[in-house]
Amino acid sequence: MPIIQSVRWSPGGDALRIVDQRRLPEEYVERDLTTVEEVCDAIRTLAVRGAPAIGVAGAIGLAVVAASIADRPPAEFAERLERAANAIRCARPTAVNLPWAVDRMRARARADSGLAPRAVAEALRAEATAILDEDRAMCRRIGEAGLPLVPDGARVLTHCNAGALATAGIGTALAPVYLAAEAGRRVSVYADETRPLLQGSRLTAWELSRAGIPVTVLTDSMAASLMRGGEVDLVIVGADRIAANGDVANKVGTYALAVVAHHHGIPFYVAAPTSTLDPDAPDGDAIEIEHRPAAEVAVAPAGPLVRVHNPAFDITPADLVTAIVTDAGVSRAPYDFGRRAKEEGLLPSTA
Amino acid sequence: MPIIQSVRWSPGGDALRIVDQRRLPEEYVERDLTTVEEVCDAIRTLAVRGAPAIGVAGAIGLAVVAASIADRPPAEFAERLERAANAIRCARPTAVNLPWAVDRMRARARADSGLAPRAVAEALRAEATAILDEDRAMCRRIGEAGLPLVPDGARVLTHCNAGALATAGIGTALAPVYLAAEAGRRVSVYADETRPLLQGSRLTAWELSRAGIPVTVLTDSMAASLMRGGEVDLVIVGADRIAANGDVANKVGTYALAVVAHHHGIPFYVAAPTSTLDPDAPDGDAIEIEHRPAAEVAVAPAGPLVRVHNPAFDITPADLVTAIVTDAGVSRAPYDFGRRAKEEGLLPSTA
Repeated sequence: MPIIQSVRWSPGGDALRIVDQRRLPEEYVERDLTTVEEVCDAIRTLAVRGAPAIGVAGAIGLAVVAASIADRPPAEFAERLERAANAIRCARPTAVNLPWAVDRMRARARADSGLAPRAVAEALRAEATAILDEDRAMCRRIGEAGLPLVPDGARVLTHCNAGALATAGIGTALAPVYLAAEAGRRVSVYADETRPLLQGSRLTAWELSRAGIPVTVLTDSMAASLMRGGEVDLVIVGADRIAANGDVANKVGTYALAVVAHHHGIPFYVAAPTSTLDPDAPDGDAIEIEHRPAAEVAVAPAGPLVRVHNPAFDITPADLVTAIVTDAGVSRAPYDFGRRAKEEGLLPSTA
Repeated sequence: MPIIQSVRWSPGGDALRIVDQRRLPEEYVERDLTTVEEVCDAIRTLAVRGAPAIGVAGAIGLAVVAASIADRPPAEFAERLERAANAIRCARPTAVNLPWAVDRMRARARADSGLAPRAVAEALRAEATAILDEDRAMCRRIGEAGLPLVPDGARVLTHCNAGALATAGIGTALAPVYLAAEAGRRVSVYADETRPLLQGSRLTAWELSRAGIPVTVLTDSMAASLMRGGEVDLVIVGADRIAANGDVANKVGTYALAVVAHHHGIPFYVAAPTSTLDPDAPDGDAIEIEHRPAAEVAVAPAGPLVRVHNPAFDITPADLVTAIVTDAGVSRAPYDFGRRAKEEGLLPSTA
């Protein structure tokens, strides 16, 4: 079976089609969304998730809404479009890709504001398609850059879900794995279940097995003994933000993996789009870590003597990262994304 | 509130009283067990768990059964006692303490076989009480030996449950923590939730907070970043078996903790009774690791392409263990429990 496409146009081109990730892995449900409320709700409730996928969903969703109101007078069209853009932009607070994609759509609408609503709606459809295509191309470039790191027979360990379900394309961390399989290399994956929200056992295992790649699920605490047993050849994870010095913010548990990989002399790779690079953050200390509700971890109500520690992310210092794979290629230590951003135009598309 | 007593005599002395650990932490339920079936069922379904606690439960359970049949003729008494012993002995296959305790009770019955059933039953009551008292004393000696390792203000990280709920006394890994609190030292605990069965968030958090010790629950994957943040002063865990060279078999995830503690220069202690020492196992490679059902980890049915890795234990090599605390004192590397077993009589009470 082909690699899953989690976000795209419906075949008729009149709706945003998503795979409902709340139902995975028990049920495979596609939904066609056509209203602002449906799009916002899907993003808010994690029916669609993963920063790149959310950005694409926001763009297509806004284009769909624009088409549905293109028969209104120009002033009403502009006003309703602006309201829709604001609503979608705020559906989730933390992902940078969502406001970035919506703002890009908005700029396009503004540039074409002299045109008839139908022409603006057409322009927005083209812009959303461009955002979708760019995301797919970005994934593929990450995959191509990382492909040499995944030799025939490789046993790859990953954490969380940085796969096709998190993007419009073939993923970030999983892109080199998909391309290795496509190139006929035998490749298998160990997927950390990824507590507390189980993105590994729910999503990564599902999408890999669906694409014909063998996957073994384990609890996060088992990765170290697996490495000690010589069962892991390399680790690839995604990233939520990468500081100028190469420090990586990613799903909590990534740092522990990096430490144990280092202890066993196993390469530890981070794969992410250049939009994840943040040259304004000199190092990991400058990256704020979101703390999430206790209920995600607790099995009983917390009391004055029972507290819960639930950071969503952690920081992996650059010296534990063997290489960082982006759509611009493979970088190795010493990382200097601040200088490169300036001198080579390796600028994040969101900042 | 005092430290929980998970296994003991009922106040009237005619039943085995346990705290039902299947119901924790939602509900606190004590059960008085009086029949072979009830005792076996409680052990089998993990209503009582933890190797030392199971041994004590088996011994008291057998004594209760003996008292209930003491009015039978000697031959029938002996035959029914033997059947009860066999049933209890096999209620769970892996814990060494259970067959050890039952065999000790059986030996006592055999030594007294010339006496009337009522006298044999009385002797068995005394033997079970001795096993209970010895377990309590063992816990306290571990606590006293480990007390100097837990200074005032210590922030202790632990994994799984090696506390009062796993013994008849104040636990093994948690014994030094309880005695430090008893001595007026401020001590707090970070409890790994311990996937897949959540003994940390369900049991360790419950028993510590009940005893007035502040505890913070985290997922297993968060311990490393907590250490990097300077929040952990020492790690103490229990052990299921310790090889002659000091390699430690314990709940899966222990090895990862040892590696990350080592990386951060944080002391990593193992606390366990001398009965856990296995001088016949030269090193960790000689210890067989139990693999448990996939359903404990999986969130969806496994298929040909989705497998589950679920070892119950892992091996921590001795060179990552700062010290091993037993009821015989504190040992540091190089460990040589094989020689000590011979020369100093530091023999496991089960082998």
